[in-house]
Parts: sequence; structure tokens; C-alpha cells
Amino acid sequence: MAETATVDDRLANERALVRFVAGALRALGVEAPDAAVVADVLVAADLRGIASHGVARLVSHDVRRLRDGLMAAQPTVTVVRETPTSIVLDAGNGLGPPAAKRAMDRVIEKARDAGTAFGAVRNSNHFGIAGFYAMLALEHDMIGIASTNAMRSAAPTFGREILLGTNPLAFAIPAQHEPPFVLDFATTTERGGALAPLGGFGIEGGGHKGYGLGVLVDILCGVLSGGAFGAQLPGPNDAPQSGKISHFFGAIRLDGFRDAARFKADMDTELRTFKESRKSAGHDRVYVAGEIEYEKALFNRTHGVPVNAKVWAGLEELAGELGIPFDLA
Amino acid sequence: MAETATVDDRLANERALVRFVAGALRALGVEAPDAAVVADVLVAADLRGIASHGVARLVSHDVRRLRDGLMAAQPTVTVVRETPTSIVLDAGNGLGPPAAKRAMDRVIEKARDAGTAFGAVRNSNHFGIAGFYAMLALEHDMIGIASTNAMRSAAPTFGREILLGTNPLAFAIPAQHEPPFVLDFATTTERGGALAPLGGFGIEGGGHKGYGLGVLVDILCGVLSGGAFGAQLPGPNDAPQSGKISHFFGAIRLDGFRDAARFKADMDTELRTFKESRKSAGHDRVYVAGEIEYEKALFNRTHGVPVNAKVWAGLEELAGELGIPFDLA
Repeated sequence: MAETATVDDRLANERALVRFVAGALRALGVEAPDAAVVADVLVAADLRGIASHGVARLVSHDVRRLRDGLMAAQPTVTVVRETPTSIVLDAGNGLGPPAAKRAMDRVIEKARDAGTAFGAVRNSNHFGIAGFYAMLALEHDMIGIASTNAMRSAAPTFGREILLGTNPLAFAIPAQHEPPFVLDFATTTERGGALAPLGGFGIEGGGHKGYGLGVLVDILCGVLSGGAFGAQLPGPNDAPQSGKISHFFGAIRLDGFRDAARFKADMDTELRTFKESRKSAGHDRVYVAGEIEYEKALFNRTHGVPVNAKVWAGLEELAGELGIPFDLA
Repeated sequence: MAETATVDDRLANERALVRFVAGALRALGVEAPDAAVVADVLVAADLRGIASHGVARLVSHDVRRLRDGLMAAQPTVTVVRETPTSIVLDAGNGLGPPAAKRAMDRVIEKARDAGTAFGAVRNSNHFGIAGFYAMLALEHDMIGIASTNAMRSAAPTFGREILLGTNPLAFAIPAQHEPPFVLDFATTTERGGALAPLGGFGIEGGGHKGYGLGVLVDILCGVLSGGAFGAQLPGPNDAPQSGKISHFFGAIRLDGFRDAARFKADMDTELRTFKESRKSAGHDRVYVAGEIEYEKALFNRTHGVPVNAKVWAGLEELAGELGIPFDLA
């Protein structure tokens, strides 16, 4: 099964971890509802085995930026434009998750009425895992879409200037008995220690496609929201910058196309077709997108959420600094 | 510039080529408006330098299937479901392009009223280049989306069963002075003569992401339309099959998010940022998605559309069989 903890990990209780993260953010001046959203998003990443986007970010990103005044603890979030099928928010340089969740919640409400809707958020910050927001659509029998641009870390095909972020795209699609299809991926990939577009450097492996997907994300997030995009985003050698990140969200009702129950039954067939297909040498499973993360979340919810020992120590140190209780068990 | 003809190519006049393709299809029983759409779509591929999806398909795919009774020359196309933001068509096993264009046209009309809309088509056949349909949205100041599933030709990550088609995705986004951003790509890539998911075999290069994108396309097209999907699609060793292909389309109004003119001006900045960035060794240009195809189309429209000499001979032979004039000059 999905044992995900390593020897460097300690195990936290999910609820205790959420409570601690939210409490730390409140102690730093974040309003309680916003702090709760951030805690949910960060711990969801750890539950799903994506520690890079989990509570490790609390100290390395959120706390540092709040203390340095680079991010607003109590931002003024404004609606920039709104129609029955679209919404654009300005996050006021606040934490990414509260503005992102507010946008996706509104997109889902609009899609419930109109059949489909999209939203964008500008002047925001790191929002955690894109899949969290896409998955909010699942219980509404909708397809969920979420994306974000990010600080620049990779060069375009045939280029040597660092212009592209990891720019993830996430799609969540419900099934009946099978776990949902949740495709949540960076449009970059690591090659020899450096980040390349998905498909690699050059065009031989299709790197121009990954590069194109990265630009697509930057357009949907940065250009469409009226936020920062392209070279306006911070690069790898720049000091941390305020509110340069933008997000994009979408929701599509299944029953605009088919009866939702029949669609979801066919999704089971589709997903099982891949899962039950013949394996290549040395492999005993073929996974579908989101399956590994789903199993990890089930396992970690029961057995404890793995937190890297250094991250754990950082949280404990933070608790001391803020004068709040530290009990993650 | 974008010289695209090779020594094996002959050059056709664009209008003459369109006229010939449409005439050949009419002689095979296809109604004039449908024949005109197919001709436009096939020649658009040749113009853009994508000969694999161009008039080469007329003989190898369309004529063969019409003659063998595998595809209906005069299909009954029906609306399966329709809402203000969605439409599902059954193509009645006709040629792909007419049903696909009808769906995308309706999606654009709906998006004009509602802000955004989506459509799917089932029981269809090969529809040419996905980018053709996505680009229909451009003149309406919308983002266009088009996709199709396809006969099975690649295995999923860790699997050895051929289950995934080339399953292309296309996104078209307008700019002001710059050519539009047109990302139109197969979610597979060639590796050592075989097709692998974008990112390659295994997970080291991110092949699971390309595999996930391929399944996403199959869901959006096949499952969402109520058509064939997964193992129901024809495989590489199967005889040609009727109407198993499904398509997916979308359109999103720019002004749901921002003033369209300001968006397009920022698109110019975004695209130029990449185009004008520093080049890697051995390269003198960094392209953006759709730029090469745009330049090829401009060039070929003036200098003649390259048609492979064998394809040219096949068209001439077809003209003789059908008793229609053959003059492509």
C-alpha cells in the first residue's frame, strides 16, 4: 500500500496539524477563516504525498513573507470584473489559498447556474497544490480546472533566458466507484538538475509542447487576470517579490453533456481499462492520474501525516516564537 | 523564411487545391457545403506545413472509407443534448470536419451570449488539425479550444497495452499585432520509432504527465460525448472502423476577464518576451506556439502549397477515376 513516510519523517495527526498551522497564521495576524483555508490546503498536499507544497511552505514561504511585510496578513480582496460565467479577483497581495478558494467557490456557483464558468486571480501569492481547487468541483458533478503561474525557473525551447515557471495545470473529473481522475502536473520537468519544459530541452522529445503549455498557463493566469506575466514575474536570482502570482480556475457541469450518473459509470470503465491493462516488464501496476495521491491520502489520514524532521523542528521553533502550543500527535 | 517544400513536393495553388478536394468529395456523394468544409480543413493543414493531416488524407482516409461504406457521405447529424452553454452532436458516422465545424460554430455562438461554452461530438471520424477549430474563435475575441481522441497507438506509463491515441489538444488565443498563440499538439511523442506519451516512456521525463493528458483528452471527447473511449477505440491492428472518433470544443470570451483590446496588447508583450529572449547555442530564434505554422501559411499561400509528389499522383489518379478535371496550378 501507500506507505509514504521516510526515515526523515515524523508523523502528525491530520487535525492537529491543521489546527497548528491555522493557529500559527492567526498569531501572525491572519484572519481565522483565511488561516483555516491555508491550513487545509497545505495539509492536503502533505496528505497526498506532495510534501514540497505542504506545511514545509508555512515557514519557508508564508511566515517569512508575512514577517518581512512582503505579503499582507489581512489583504483587501476585490472583485475586478464579474459576469454570470466569469470572475476576476485581485487578491490584494494576500495569501494565495483564501483568494484562490474564494474564486473557485464562485466559479462553481456560477457553473451551477450557467453550466460552466471561469475565474482568474491576480496580485496573489503561492496557492499550494492546484489539484486542491480543481477537486472542489468533484462533489458538484463538475469537471474542475485550476492553474497558476509561478516564479521563473526554466528556459523556453531554443532559449537560454529563464522565463517559465513550473506553471502547473490541474483537471479533476469524478467517477462513480473509482477514485476521481485528478491530473495535477507541472508543465516543467527536471533534467539533469535543471528544469526543462515537459518533453525536455530541444524538440526531439516534444519539449516545445511543454514550453507551449507553460506559456498557455502564464496567459490564462497572468495575462487574462491583468496580473504580472512573462518577464514581470520574479526570477531565480531575484529577491522575493510581492503579489506577482496569478491563478486560473474553471468548472464545467457534466450534465451539460450527459446524465452525470451515466458519465461517472463510464468513467469507472475508462479508468479501469488503464488500471487493468497489461503491465510493462518490472512494473506491477498501471496507475491513472490522482490514484497514487488518493491512496496516500487514505493511508496518511489513518497512520499519520508524514512531516520531514527538519520541517517538524521548524514548526516547533515557530511555536516557541509565537508562544502557541505545539502538539501534532 | 518559411520555405517548407521539399524535393519530393510539388506546388499547388491554394484555391485550385481546395476546389479539387471539394469536387472529388462531391463526386463521391458528399453534399457541397460539407465537401467545402473538408477541403478547407485539409488544405489548411498543408498550408500550415502539417502535411500528415492535409490532402494526403483525402485518398488515404476519406475516399477509401466513403467507397468502402465505412463512413457516410450524407450522414444524419443530430443534436443529442443542448443547453445555453453546451451542445453534444452525433455526427452520424460522417466526415469529421463538417460536424466538428458545426459544433465549434455553435459553441462560439453560445459563448457570444453566455460568455463561455463547450461542445462535444461523437460517432465521428478523423477531423484534420485540431488547431483549425480552435482558431475559429480568434476573430470573436475568444480563446478557442479543440481536441479529439484517435485510434489507439501508444501504451500508458508502466503499461504495454496499446490504449492511447495521439489525442491532440489545441488552444488558440488572439494577440493584437503579433500572430495568435496557437498551441496544437499531440499528447504523444515519437521515441525510437514507437509512440510514447509526451515526456517519454516511464516517469523520469514526466511521461506520466503526457499519459494523463492523453487520458484527459479521451475523457473530454469520448466519455463526455457518450461516444467510444478507451479500449472501444480501434487499435493499430484492427481493420478501419466506423465512427468511433469523438471531439471536444470550447470558447471563452476575453472580455469576461478584461477589456479585449488591453488583453491583446498584453499578449503582444507576452509573445515578444519569449521571441526576443536570448537564444541557446546553435539557435537563432525562439518561437512561440503557432508562429512557425503561421509563417508557413503566409509563405505557401503566396508561393504554392507543397504537396508530396506521391500524394499529387494519387490525386491525379483519383481525378481520372472520378472523371473530374485535375488542374492544381
